[in-house]
Amino acid sequence: MTDARRIIIIGCGAGGGTSAQFARKTDRTATITIFEKGRYPQYSKCGLPYAIAGTVPAFQDLIEFSEEWFQKEHIDIHLGTSVESIDMKNKRVVAQNSSERIEREFDSLILATGATPWIPPIQQIQNNGQLLQGIFVLRTIDDGKQILAQIKKGKHAVIIGAGLIGLEMADTLHTKGMNVTVVEALPTILANTLDEDMSEPVLQSLQLKISVLTNHLAMRVEEHHGAIISLTIKENNTGREKKIQTDLLIIATGTKPETDLAKTIGCAIGKTGGIIVNEKTETSVKDVYAVGDCTEYKDFITNEPLCVGLGSIVVRQGISAGTNAAGGTYTLPPGVILTRTSEFFRMEIAAVGPVKQGMKNLPLVTGKYTGFSKPEYFPGKDSITIKVGAEEQTRRIISAQAVGSNAAQRINTLACAVLGKMTIEEFRKLETAYAPPIAPTLDALTLACDVAALRLDRKRRNP
Amino acid sequence: MTDARRIIIIGCGAGGGTSAQFARKTDRTATITIFEKGRYPQYSKCGLPYAIAGTVPAFQDLIEFSEEWFQKEHIDIHLGTSVESIDMKNKRVVAQNSSERIEREFDSLILATGATPWIPPIQQIQNNGQLLQGIFVLRTIDDGKQILAQIKKGKHAVIIGAGLIGLEMADTLHTKGMNVTVVEALPTILANTLDEDMSEPVLQSLQLKISVLTNHLAMRVEEHHGAIISLTIKENNTGREKKIQTDLLIIATGTKPETDLAKTIGCAIGKTGGIIVNEKTETSVKDVYAVGDCTEYKDFITNEPLCVGLGSIVVRQGISAGTNAAGGTYTLPPGVILTRTSEFFRMEIAAVGPVKQGMKNLPLVTGKYTGFSKPEYFPGKDSITIKVGAEEQTRRIISAQAVGSNAAQRINTLACAVLGKMTIEEFRKLETAYAPPIAPTLDALTLACDVAALRLDRKRRNP
Repeated sequence: MTDARRIIIIGCGAGGGTSAQFARKTDRTATITIFEKGRYPQYSKCGLPYAIAGTVPAFQDLIEFSEEWFQKEHIDIHLGTSVESIDMKNKRVVAQNSSERIEREFDSLILATGATPWIPPIQQIQNNGQLLQGIFVLRTIDDGKQILAQIKKGKHAVIIGAGLIGLEMADTLHTKGMNVTVVEALPTILANTLDEDMSEPVLQSLQLKISVLTNHLAMRVEEHHGAIISLTIKENNTGREKKIQTDLLIIATGTKPETDLAKTIGCAIGKTGGIIVNEKTETSVKDVYAVGDCTEYKDFITNEPLCVGLGSIVVRQGISAGTNAAGGTYTLPPGVILTRTSEFFRMEIAAVGPVKQGMKNLPLVTGKYTGFSKPEYFPGKDSITIKVGAEEQTRRIISAQAVGSNAAQRINTLACAVLGKMTIEEFRKLETAYAPPIAPTLDALTLACDVAALRLDRKRRNP
Repeated sequence: MTDARRIIIIGCGAGGGTSAQFARKTDRTATITIFEKGRYPQYSKCGLPYAIAGTVPAFQDLIEFSEEWFQKEHIDIHLGTSVESIDMKNKRVVAQNSSERIEREFDSLILATGATPWIPPIQQIQNNGQLLQGIFVLRTIDDGKQILAQIKKGKHAVIIGAGLIGLEMADTLHTKGMNVTVVEALPTILANTLDEDMSEPVLQSLQLKISVLTNHLAMRVEEHHGAIISLTIKENNTGREKKIQTDLLIIATGTKPETDLAKTIGCAIGKTGGIIVNEKTETSVKDVYAVGDCTEYKDFITNEPLCVGLGSIVVRQGISAGTNAAGGTYTLPPGVILTRTSEFFRMEIAAVGPVKQGMKNLPLVTGKYTGFSKPEYFPGKDSITIKVGAEEQTRRIISAQAVGSNAAQRINTLACAVLGKMTIEEFRKLETAYAPPIAPTLDALTLACDVAALRLDRKRRNP
């Protein structure tokens, strides 16, 4: 008779929490321990903008699995507890919280240490490693609460970064009655999600509600008189500088993987800075798994390494790590397809696969179609634009983007085609669901593929 | 130099009209002629319930391509013109309208003759082949106008048939303020779309608004005093009969393919009564194509022949027939997957693949999951139930059904998996789009597959 399997999980975000749940589902007798340095058990980080906006009534509502829930599942959860060291020789973890030092042995270890916000090199933004008063990142419930408190103190907000989180926060702050300016260093918004031709109409819509300054670099926080922040930004092309006064400054310029512990035990770190994991979420160190924002995995299309950072992927890694660590088998596809979506100012956007920018070495042919969610004659129809990308030689669908009605669910259908390595020809013959109040006989999904097919044919004839 | 290709199309519904458009796209110089016996050019039959309801303001709005549109495309369209005979030896069609007799030769002929309503054997429902006053089918704009006129004459309506059209009409008549009774001979509603466990909650919701009598056979129209119809129905199990008085009776019990002309030229007719066509919509007669409701094609999963009858399929057949008849190549998949959807009483339902009933010889394992359209903590979430069916040996996804939020778009994603022959394992690892206002990290799509996977594993262990 063997002793119960011992699994230790470091971090209780979506990755760690999901790992724990699936470890428990796989092995009812395993001893499962979670160490989480923060105060809260598994909660939805992606829900923070909606809790600040008040759409979700309270921050507490974001907690998806409570401390009690884990305890009921006989998962030994330690909040407010930092792991200080990992001893791989004796497979032992040492953790510390305000009242005790905990030493525990493991058979399998799952690193779910997450990521920390990346702070761009803006002069004088930090003082002794602390952001100045009125300047925030959005990563934790505590960040959210501080932002909400600051919103009450003024009317002007600046967000640095026009990615998904930056624009979700722009919507939130606009909802709260603030005048919002978004500063983006790149020439386009949503650069990781949409190609420029797709993001341009979104940008135009945004400009009706807020001010978006693309091609502007945040240079320095020049003065800081009481509660007013003066931010200097520089126009990239002209080099011209200008100052913006704001009551609230949010940095939404991405994250960097938290890998300090992983490095101490020799886990291989990839060129993005994340812990390298394979299809089973195994690291380079035996019996050590890693999941979520601290990891690096392959892009399904380009094979390039990338940091994960999407909740949809994180939970699937958690399923894999928890299942495998507990003696089961769960193998992920050989890469991530990056199905992603967001909604702000009542616009829904979604994408799958790399943006054009990320496919420099792949000969890509695209097809784009703008139509309606319902037949032309049907009242209450909404606009939908679909863009689909196919690899020129194989005609295989490798990317898609959508803006408009049910963008996310439409992208799911194309995501299935990407994962299934379908060609444009196969997909355009897919019967899509049709009924006048719901969708036209030929959905924008199909018609975008028709455009791509025509272009592919033309390229074949005139290479 | 050859003369321009001559294409004749009989029928200008969605199948015929789409054929003409794609023939024109494929060959800019072809002579294209359409003979349509009705008064209207291509319009949406599926839109009729919504024009009766007033959601679509006028019947005229349902016309998707006008006479002028066809003429502008140099398509010679003859409305109100019946084809009297086809001479295959000389490849000539003779047509007749109120003012002239038209003889025209063709290189390719496309039959798009549609279907006619199937009238169940209800005693005294017809008089000399005419339905009695107050009794209607819903197939044409003229049918729709007559129903609308009749609605104004009374409060009580009975619909025979609880399929998609029957229930769409139930919603329409309820919207118009009528008391609606639906009589269905089968024990369940929507028998071609949903399994009983999926349709049962839909039935329960319907019963709050209208009266649905399943397991009841319409026997006879016993009296017909002025405008009041007395319908006798019989409960199948007990044999008990009862009478219902109604001001309006609609027959929605399906259609039969219109194949009279096809038979005169020797087109092979299948066991469903439709014209047999192949992947290129070719009939058994050289240079003769057929599309739409008059045809029979294979089910992708069961290989059984079936009548087509879905707008989504009809237009795709039209693309194929038009393209092929004009010298291009467009090959359809080797069977139809029957992606279908409808909405009534604010419920959206959708399905792909055969219902369980239709898969008697296929060992099927299903997984069902009821969840929400958004994360549990997010306000305004709607319910969604997904059921997925996998072939036991191959674990390939062969069917799916959905009731609730975005059922149609969710079924499209599963339809892609059916067409792409994906297994449950592959599909459940698909990254679905996640953002709190839009969808949860693990969509009901995924979780239904998880249930199916568990059951498949259990069957494998305990066969």
